[in-house]
Amino acid sequence: MKIALIGYGNVGQALARLIRRQQSEYPFVISGIHTARHGTAVCKKDAAKGLSLTPRFGPAMGSIEDFLRASGARVAVELTPLNPWSGEPATSHIRAALDRGLHVVTANKGPIAHAYAGLRDQATRRGVLFRFESTVMDGTPVFNLVRRNLPAVEVLGFTGVLNSTTKIVVETMERGGTFEQGVETARRLGIAEADARFDTDGWDSACKTAALANVLMDAGVTPQAVSARGIGRITPERAQELSRSGKTIRLVSRARSAAGGFSLRVRAEVLEKTDVLASTRGTSNLLLLHTGLMGTLGVVSINPGVDQTAYGVFSDLVEIADAVYGE
Amino acid sequence: MKIALIGYGNVGQALARLIRRQQSEYPFVISGIHTARHGTAVCKKDAAKGLSLTPRFGPAMGSIEDFLRASGARVAVELTPLNPWSGEPATSHIRAALDRGLHVVTANKGPIAHAYAGLRDQATRRGVLFRFESTVMDGTPVFNLVRRNLPAVEVLGFTGVLNSTTKIVVETMERGGTFEQGVETARRLGIAEADARFDTDGWDSACKTAALANVLMDAGVTPQAVSARGIGRITPERAQELSRSGKTIRLVSRARSAAGGFSLRVRAEVLEKTDVLASTRGTSNLLLLHTGLMGTLGVVSINPGVDQTAYGVFSDLVEIADAVYGE
Repeated sequence: MKIALIGYGNVGQALARLIRRQQSEYPFVISGIHTARHGTAVCKKDAAKGLSLTPRFGPAMGSIEDFLRASGARVAVELTPLNPWSGEPATSHIRAALDRGLHVVTANKGPIAHAYAGLRDQATRRGVLFRFESTVMDGTPVFNLVRRNLPAVEVLGFTGVLNSTTKIVVETMERGGTFEQGVETARRLGIAEADARFDTDGWDSACKTAALANVLMDAGVTPQAVSARGIGRITPERAQELSRSGKTIRLVSRARSAAGGFSLRVRAEVLEKTDVLASTRGTSNLLLLHTGLMGTLGVVSINPGVDQTAYGVFSDLVEIADAVYGE
Repeated sequence: MKIALIGYGNVGQALARLIRRQQSEYPFVISGIHTARHGTAVCKKDAAKGLSLTPRFGPAMGSIEDFLRASGARVAVELTPLNPWSGEPATSHIRAALDRGLHVVTANKGPIAHAYAGLRDQATRRGVLFRFESTVMDGTPVFNLVRRNLPAVEVLGFTGVLNSTTKIVVETMERGGTFEQGVETARRLGIAEADARFDTDGWDSACKTAALANVLMDAGVTPQAVSARGIGRITPERAQELSRSGKTIRLVSRARSAAGGFSLRVRAEVLEKTDVLASTRGTSNLLLLHTGLMGTLGVVSINPGVDQTAYGVFSDLVEIADAVYGE
């Protein structure tokens, strides 16, 4: 199955390594890579193994359409850097790929947070699959869990601790460090975005909240519809004072169906340290789903990294291959 | 799709209610119920909705084979009371159903803990499905999660807090009650088995550990292969002393691949109260899977009850219906 990658950063490179390692069992071939920075690489038609892990890039092709055509791919994987305010250019890339009748996988939460319903419907009309498991929980099954394993279950709401940078900032302050030192630590760990306010102001969590609500509750919202406040007002003194009384702070995403719509909020919440929502540290994330038939159940990822995100994309590709070639 | 129930206790009755409620979307029909205590009920061939929720039982049929034949069912659901020491008679019931070419669902962990590989292979030979999602985590997806959502992932081990009675006993002792009062509370909540030593001695956890290891790691063991110790030596004084220093006790199941085999243990472990393993209370359960490609990820169920267990069976029935009639 020929695959075209749009974007080739850390996740793309981890995915390429994973595909190479699994190639005897899953005959996936990366037939093209297109990046804004390095240009475009497309492999020769008869290259059975596809592009090398460090391909020679030529000049960037003029358009995504040209690139997808040249790649001969059946699946496009969108992995460009996130623009969290608009979801672009990822959303346009995905539209172009769906327009060509390609299946699409993305690890980019922007399009899911900003434009999910339109993309889903476009994929349905074209009879192709659109998958995005890695966008919120770094590859831990959430969307596929609900879709494949919970038939007849309605998701009424959810509660999630989904942002890593703010956890590290809070932990740093609890140990006597400053807010800025916490941000610096998160950056050193490769977790914080270039502009860490994206994390600390709650916008990252708002994007994830909107993405989850769009897919699991058909909310049809953008991140702007999420009432989000960050951790900016928390001082080291306050964090330490809470810690001494057995409490801690987490940036919590909460969603529920409300009269005539959806209540979507992100808040820095004071929690007992023994609360399950407080029990995840570092990059670990937790999501509880509140449902009708199944009560409350959840998934947790412990210290995931780029390899897990790449795996989530891989698992989506396996589902597409099963659909295309039969299980 | 005609379904025969073997056993009609709390889970069976909850399942019958759920099937009735979902009947417009999922046309499942309970065509027979067989119990040791009440006898057998089989519905008339033309009864479109199947048996009533409170059927009139006649004398018990002479054999499971006779019952399955009379029911005309395509799927057998095994829900008899657990015999944790042998897995019988559930295992024999399942064998009889598979022998007749029926698909089988069970919520009974005995057969999975004692005889999984043989049943799985028998189902494969007959070309039918054998499903058991509710056996360990009360319906929260675990087995289906790994099988359907984590392709190419090898489960190298797991860590689980899977027994509710012991959590309630520990909580009771931490609040100053006795061991016996804790057991009594668990019994009143309908959680403890008739013989609560089954829980407190670690045997329930050993059964769950064996079941998980058999399915997720192809361990081919019985609960006797699990090194299990319970919470019997813990005193209220010790529980309170630990609690004052921020610690608590959980009965933890641990499994990992070891040189030439499997290391399978159940122990009362002293944990920080802030540990994610300690964060589940009451009937809530947590299972962490340690994998190659996906690192550590987990599932959590918050205060599940009999309706969740019934839902897990229902979700297995939906999968079978999809396979039989096409999605």
